[in-house]
Amino acid sequence: MKAFQDCYPDDYSHCYGCGRLNEHGLKIKSYWEGEESVCRVMPREYYSGGKKDILYGGLIASLMDCHGAGTAAAAKAREMGINIKPGSMPRFVTASLKVDYLAPTPLDTELELKGRVKEIKGRKVTVGITLAADGRLCASGEVIMVEIKE
Amino acid sequence: MKAFQDCYPDDYSHCYGCGRLNEHGLKIKSYWEGEESVCRVMPREYYSGGKKDILYGGLIASLMDCHGAGTAAAAKAREMGINIKPGSMPRFVTASLKVDYLAPTPLDTELELKGRVKEIKGRKVTVGITLAADGRLCASGEVIMVEIKE
Repeated sequence: MKAFQDCYPDDYSHCYGCGRLNEHGLKIKSYWEGEESVCRVMPREYYSGGKKDILYGGLIASLMDCHGAGTAAAAKAREMGINIKPGSMPRFVTASLKVDYLAPTPLDTELELKGRVKEIKGRKVTVGITLAADGRLCASGEVIMVEIKE
Repeated sequence: MKAFQDCYPDDYSHCYGCGRLNEHGLKIKSYWEGEESVCRVMPREYYSGGKKDILYGGLIASLMDCHGAGTAAAAKAREMGINIKPGSMPRFVTASLKVDYLAPTPLDTELELKGRVKEIKGRKVTVGITLAADGRLCASGEVIMVEIKE
């Protein structure tokens, strides 16, 4: 099964968070699991927050942004009846991002992001996202994504 | 003049975004300029977005988070009459972060973040932040920071 990000066109695959062509980046991968999109990430040990054992908040925001963009694109593709394959994915940019930090996120464990599409309205897709570590909810967020028209 | 981040206690200086002890991190530096806090950053070339010449949104969120945390701490210190010096800074964590992406942010130029304290209410400090590139406003945001009590 291809990840959402593996279906982005090449010229849109350079993102530090999710671009498969960014050799320094995180290359996160998102998939449908039923009605939810899921992304699992093991953070690098130097992505600490102020304290060494806690994840820095910027990474949480970055993961929500990239997972949200992927979820929006995949949801739009599904709505349009596009069969997702490499190069076929619609392209989205972030209009807004909101993150609520609910609990300190540990650095030494796999993170699980889950996305749920709240609304598709023309070119605008709103996605709600949660981030959990060891099954514990650590952050929730919402992104508004807008499809790029060439 | 010491940056806000240079005055964080050692055990709170490991953040990837702003910790002076994180050797892999960005080590951003924030200062007062009148009533505003300012932080100038030249992004690494691999912090691209989907397209190679544009900054990825996660970095913008990260910079706002760290600059906002520094601004909140410095504002609280000022309110309490603490003379900022290494080790003296109050410690804050992010409760929430909101970013509105207004225009694509170029990757090849220095970024300028400006913070303005909106409210100090007990342990809670709200900071509004703008991000400009070449004098052009590219993003605006707001963070709510909460002081850590030991």
